[in-house]
Amino acid sequence: MPELAWVNGEITNLYDAKVSFMDHGYLFGYGVYEALKVYNGKPFCVEEHMDRFERSMKEIRIKPDLSRKETIEIIYDLVEKSELQDAFIYLQITRGVGPRNNPSLPGAKPTLSMFVAYLAPLPDSVRQDGVKAILVKDDRWAHPHIKTLNLLPNILAKQIAEENNAYEAILANEEGIVTEGASSNVYAVFKDTIVTRPTDGKILSGITRLVLCRIIEQNGFKYKEDYFTTAELKEADEVFVTNSGAEVLAVTDIDGDKIGNGKCGPITQKLYDLFMQEVSRTTGR
Amino acid sequence: MPELAWVNGEITNLYDAKVSFMDHGYLFGYGVYEALKVYNGKPFCVEEHMDRFERSMKEIRIKPDLSRKETIEIIYDLVEKSELQDAFIYLQITRGVGPRNNPSLPGAKPTLSMFVAYLAPLPDSVRQDGVKAILVKDDRWAHPHIKTLNLLPNILAKQIAEENNAYEAILANEEGIVTEGASSNVYAVFKDTIVTRPTDGKILSGITRLVLCRIIEQNGFKYKEDYFTTAELKEADEVFVTNSGAEVLAVTDIDGDKIGNGKCGPITQKLYDLFMQEVSRTTGR
Repeated sequence: MPELAWVNGEITNLYDAKVSFMDHGYLFGYGVYEALKVYNGKPFCVEEHMDRFERSMKEIRIKPDLSRKETIEIIYDLVEKSELQDAFIYLQITRGVGPRNNPSLPGAKPTLSMFVAYLAPLPDSVRQDGVKAILVKDDRWAHPHIKTLNLLPNILAKQIAEENNAYEAILANEEGIVTEGASSNVYAVFKDTIVTRPTDGKILSGITRLVLCRIIEQNGFKYKEDYFTTAELKEADEVFVTNSGAEVLAVTDIDGDKIGNGKCGPITQKLYDLFMQEVSRTTGR
Repeated sequence: MPELAWVNGEITNLYDAKVSFMDHGYLFGYGVYEALKVYNGKPFCVEEHMDRFERSMKEIRIKPDLSRKETIEIIYDLVEKSELQDAFIYLQITRGVGPRNNPSLPGAKPTLSMFVAYLAPLPDSVRQDGVKAILVKDDRWAHPHIKTLNLLPNILAKQIAEENNAYEAILANEEGIVTEGASSNVYAVFKDTIVTRPTDGKILSGITRLVLCRIIEQNGFKYKEDYFTTAELKEADEVFVTNSGAEVLAVTDIDGDKIGNGKCGPITQKLYDLFMQEVSRTTGR
């Protein structure tokens, strides 16, 4: 079951895939990306990811040379070739190859690239105990709602998390208002109300968030989009994060302070179960 | 006279140089860079650029596997092999190659890469007439003093400049305080005093700026490091920008408003002349 890459039409083993040094993705991080979970050999929420991919491209003025249909066919083909069942598909597009002193590269062909890699499911114990998070200042640029390759602040925050044996870095601005995780959306449960920040341009509009909001609505949970501080977050009854890899994951420790009773709370557990039912419904997992 | 690249020890023609898709420079823009001007076949201010390169690496936790001496030898060798006289040398280092879901890549070898490319000198008419600039909001992250590959905000600002037939985008924060150009430091001359923003973490510490500050001091110009607004900038007697490529270049039009008499002013001209004398002194150009 090989991990495979696809770069502008060429399929190779993952670590044999090459791009040009003069790709503006390499020189400037000039590109956008998506990461999709694959269940039972089937990519989850492909259309939703493609919606966002196309929005991201537009925001940074990249015109794809393949249609959505063609791109999706390549995704499915690559997953099939890999024979992986539990995996993730990563795809990115950059502005293409050309002289470094030309910021717009008119006429250049964008570089579309993808890979499919194995992704181990989280152990049940992690689901039940939840994970640790730390608080880090949100140092990102003014438009974090665009899913770009300029990910250095996220990576540096993740490194600080790693050094503190934490799973995620939760970002907050100078006033202590939480934005989101370095690679996730963040939710607090106050009594029986689920609260998450509105998509106001300062957070990424997560696909798992999108699916979960549908589930929340369909199942009659109390839900509010609102702002909260790091202090309020620590006082929440439950905290959880979402992204394509972690699905719905309880956070039970923030900077060493225990959240709730230190275990995955009942609302988080219910939302995770409902999310996985949706995964089963659409992928047959 | 070929344009050459050097990637982890391998020399190729510029557009044949390849890097791994899984290089964290490509996936995250996780890297830093330098661009040096070459005069008369000799790189200018190599030690100063290496000082900054090493500071940048430290800031984002990249440990080079080559010494400064080894790196400089490669730079000189590549310039010599290219046989280019007027050129620039670009070098960058990234965190290296490894799984995307590993933010710190312990043990990975960083990817050092360079290229030497031809750089046409600016025509005399541009020196005399100066260039046009536009004002763009500074959307960058919290640490623009680090010379990282996360350059998307700079590139988007440059594209807006290009669309407005402007040479540079001058960045200013929400309160209208000027930071710097998308690829340059910015100076205003009020009467006979040269003013530029202090290196307070919100601008890059330019090497040309460093050299020019020495020249300013040695030649007894009035000089102040201070903040100014976009409105004050437009009212300045002279405005100029500096970077390795443009050296000292007059800005004579900002957003359509003429600066001074619309030509390169006397102080800018004098500073340019003195800068080029320094270039001659050290490179024999």
